[in-house]
Amino acid sequence: MISQEEAETEETVTCLHMTFYHPCQEDKMMFRCLNFCKREQVRADEMAKFGRDSNICHYNLLDTRVSRIQFSLQFYRKLHSSESCFEIKNMSKKTKLIVDKTELGYLNKIDLPWKCIICFGDYQILAEIQEGEAMDYFETHLHLAQVPILQERCLPSPQPVPESGFSSSSMSSQDKNPIEIDENESC
Amino acid sequence: MISQEEAETEETVTCLHMTFYHPCQEDKMMFRCLNFCKREQVRADEMAKFGRDSNICHYNLLDTRVSRIQFSLQFYRKLHSSESCFEIKNMSKKTKLIVDKTELGYLNKIDLPWKCIICFGDYQILAEIQEGEAMDYFETHLHLAQVPILQERCLPSPQPVPESGFSSSSMSSQDKNPIEIDENESC
Repeated sequence: MISQEEAETEETVTCLHMTFYHPCQEDKMMFRCLNFCKREQVRADEMAKFGRDSNICHYNLLDTRVSRIQFSLQFYRKLHSSESCFEIKNMSKKTKLIVDKTELGYLNKIDLPWKCIICFGDYQILAEIQEGEAMDYFETHLHLAQVPILQERCLPSPQPVPESGFSSSSMSSQDKNPIEIDENESC
Repeated sequence: MISQEEAETEETVTCLHMTFYHPCQEDKMMFRCLNFCKREQVRADEMAKFGRDSNICHYNLLDTRVSRIQFSLQFYRKLHSSESCFEIKNMSKKTKLIVDKTELGYLNKIDLPWKCIICFGDYQILAEIQEGEAMDYFETHLHLAQVPILQERCLPSPQPVPESGFSSSSMSSQDKNPIEIDENESC
């Protein structure tokens, strides 16, 4: 038996935290196949795919408005550097993928910032990378948001109800969807 | 029936030509599972994988010295451009992948130049991209080289046999492997 002193130094593992939000998540339950309970290991040589087709996508979104493969993530090591990184690629011909302020068309790809917001259609995902050393695999840890992630445009206005009878909440309901959406994507 | 005049304009397809060479290709027949006869279509959302494990790699190299996945190629569209491109990624922990003069370690990746030489171990591959318009898929066309691709370092010296008895060909035989190889990689 190898004692704790003799054992190899344990490696830390890069973990990609992803917090999901959709305004209709309670009614449509599109996230019901995602595993929010525990971290999952992904081999470094595999693409992590998110989309509607469960035969291809390990991260399955149950929504007919989602593409067969919506987007994919790959883990890689930067050239001439020990730094590892994730790259996100839009696999949807129909829907733009927005990473912070960068709009990705079909087959466009970009390095994932250490903390960013990914949007497509009505979906909002907060992605946060927790750095680790392991190179053979990484982990994903999914979370479910109870409130919109793009809060600054979603929070009800703090102004009081004016006398005209129009409440701030009824005004803001028109602006409820904080991100640009396809005409077919509203729920 | 749609006449030729009414039919939609036919799209050209991006084709990646790859010419393979290994000094022991006739004895070891590591290329016998590659299809050199015809072009093959690859979906744009798939990775083209080259390696030993035929369960994962469509392009299968029958050689115990080749990694399970040696390298992968992905098709993508450059951001803010209509240009499409291939990216090559070294998936081998054991063997460096050399693209022209750039050495890629495990999980390093690089854009594939329009014409380049890819090397790993004793393998040499000449890659040439023939541009097309189609975005849903690309084609691969594999060829087999009869002579080394890195010819400038492999051709026998044109000098005459000196009187000492050492012929230029016997001298060049020591320098027969034109690329840097792992100590386990020589055949």
